[in-house]
Amino acid sequence: MSKAKISIAETADWLKARDNFLIITHRRPDGDTVGCAGALAQGLQEAGKTAYVLYNPEITPRYARFVEEYWMLDGYKPEYTITVDIATYDLFPHNVGEYNSKISLCIDHHPSNSLYAELTCLDETVASCGETIYEILMALNGSISPRSAECLYAAVSTDTGCFVFANTTANTLRTAALLIEAGASNRKLNRMLFRTKTRSRIRIEGMINSGLEFYFDGAVAIATITREMMESAKAEEDDVDDIASMPGSVKGVLVGVTIREMTSLRDCKVSVRTSPQVNAGAISERFGGGGHPMAAGYTLEKTVAEVKKELLDVLKDFFPEAATSG
Amino acid sequence: MSKAKISIAETADWLKARDNFLIITHRRPDGDTVGCAGALAQGLQEAGKTAYVLYNPEITPRYARFVEEYWMLDGYKPEYTITVDIATYDLFPHNVGEYNSKISLCIDHHPSNSLYAELTCLDETVASCGETIYEILMALNGSISPRSAECLYAAVSTDTGCFVFANTTANTLRTAALLIEAGASNRKLNRMLFRTKTRSRIRIEGMINSGLEFYFDGAVAIATITREMMESAKAEEDDVDDIASMPGSVKGVLVGVTIREMTSLRDCKVSVRTSPQVNAGAISERFGGGGHPMAAGYTLEKTVAEVKKELLDVLKDFFPEAATSG
Repeated sequence: MSKAKISIAETADWLKARDNFLIITHRRPDGDTVGCAGALAQGLQEAGKTAYVLYNPEITPRYARFVEEYWMLDGYKPEYTITVDIATYDLFPHNVGEYNSKISLCIDHHPSNSLYAELTCLDETVASCGETIYEILMALNGSISPRSAECLYAAVSTDTGCFVFANTTANTLRTAALLIEAGASNRKLNRMLFRTKTRSRIRIEGMINSGLEFYFDGAVAIATITREMMESAKAEEDDVDDIASMPGSVKGVLVGVTIREMTSLRDCKVSVRTSPQVNAGAISERFGGGGHPMAAGYTLEKTVAEVKKELLDVLKDFFPEAATSG
Repeated sequence: MSKAKISIAETADWLKARDNFLIITHRRPDGDTVGCAGALAQGLQEAGKTAYVLYNPEITPRYARFVEEYWMLDGYKPEYTITVDIATYDLFPHNVGEYNSKISLCIDHHPSNSLYAELTCLDETVASCGETIYEILMALNGSISPRSAECLYAAVSTDTGCFVFANTTANTLRTAALLIEAGASNRKLNRMLFRTKTRSRIRIEGMINSGLEFYFDGAVAIATITREMMESAKAEEDDVDDIASMPGSVKGVLVGVTIREMTSLRDCKVSVRTSPQVNAGAISERFGGGGHPMAAGYTLEKTVAEVKKELLDVLKDFFPEAATSG
């Protein structure tokens, strides 16, 4: 089959005509990929299909509840593979193995999608892949069950920081309203996903805030999260979820950068969040990364100090008139 | 005229049949009262009416932009007075003067509304008064202008912490979607209202977090904001907007209390935020205050230490089985 883009209606028809699906989520799974996978597996099962989700070894407790009941059983032989919220091959989970080269269908919302699947249902206008899964399940089943609604509310809300990020549209909010009416308890889910901070989270936030560095007349803020800070705050992966939005929230900041030391002192993950005036994707592409215009990132096998120095050099092109130190 | 409750349609008809309005906002004005006042003044002017808003001496820069163009001019003689988002007389602004005793219409959403006005349009089911003003303006004009939409988006979003608080319903989200479609830039407004923190705000948050006290096995968290802390953080009133939700956001906390030292060392404002299991209004009523089941408050002319001691005594009734210190 040649590679093709298909519509939501065509996607629903394609699913209706087939059976025995395996759904794949992306590396460092977030609420959108996990919520979409859970909702799609649930919706397909409600349509009488067999559908499971490939276990994701990086799943965190924060998101496990939305997907763990659908993990693929040993010995399951899927006929069709579906990826949700995965833009490119290199975002596949480490254990994707034999499924890597034969993706039947990709459902995604990233403009950077490389069209790696045989069929791709791509809507770059939505804030979350969950909005597209909502439409597909409505076309498939005519309604959304409370369990699917719960998973999709997690998808839609986490990808928009609970509707506060710049990607939030009228469609996002209307979908969330429909999901609440379909049985998602936004009160319970918001408390779990957004309103509850562990004491570790509060400690790590305090360290980040007191260590914020400003450059280019205050237009750029850089936060650093070292392994030492994580240990000292007794912070787990869940405690730094969505922390990349912190530096960009300081008044006057146009580019908020978070540099995180990962597995070693020479392994940094960099998250770039920008105001509309600056293209986060363009900054990240200079280092081999990518993403959305206002949210992008890259990784480098360098130390925090090296990463920072190279980034500030590149940012001079974006702020030619400002002094580097702010 | 005898005091009566009226519907949204009746409210729109009442407005249509009259002219020369004065709109009144509440003490310590928040986004809901100010956004409602701005949107209603704008909508009435679009309907060919004369409508102004009574100057509120406590207005902060954060919310002034939504209402300042409608401030009443000197010499204006209103025929009808309308309060928005004001539950009781004692929440009237200090300068209400002659208008105090003759309120023609009250539009509100607080269950504690004392029905002080001649006519009251009250919907306790909505999260924000802005949702009701939206319906009234639609009934009055058949559409919402971009300027009214902007004011109402501010009302609806600030009263729900940008759709994360427990009061948020499907109706809140759907109204917000309609307001975006009517021309409100949620991207711009969210950045202004929720995503931008001053350096003072970051400092005061840090002080509050490091001073959090836990009681009753961690079910109660108490934050204190003293005048000294405000001065040391160089914080203004806008910098502590909505800060009352902080202590309740710590994992395991059911009752989050913020004690704020106001004009003197013996003038404390107490904000109580609770999980559904505990009634914030019931706690606050023990001290002569009130509010919603999950968000209430009171004021006492006592020191922080006295306020805390009395509160912990009362909380023993709510947590009979837990140890006071946690």
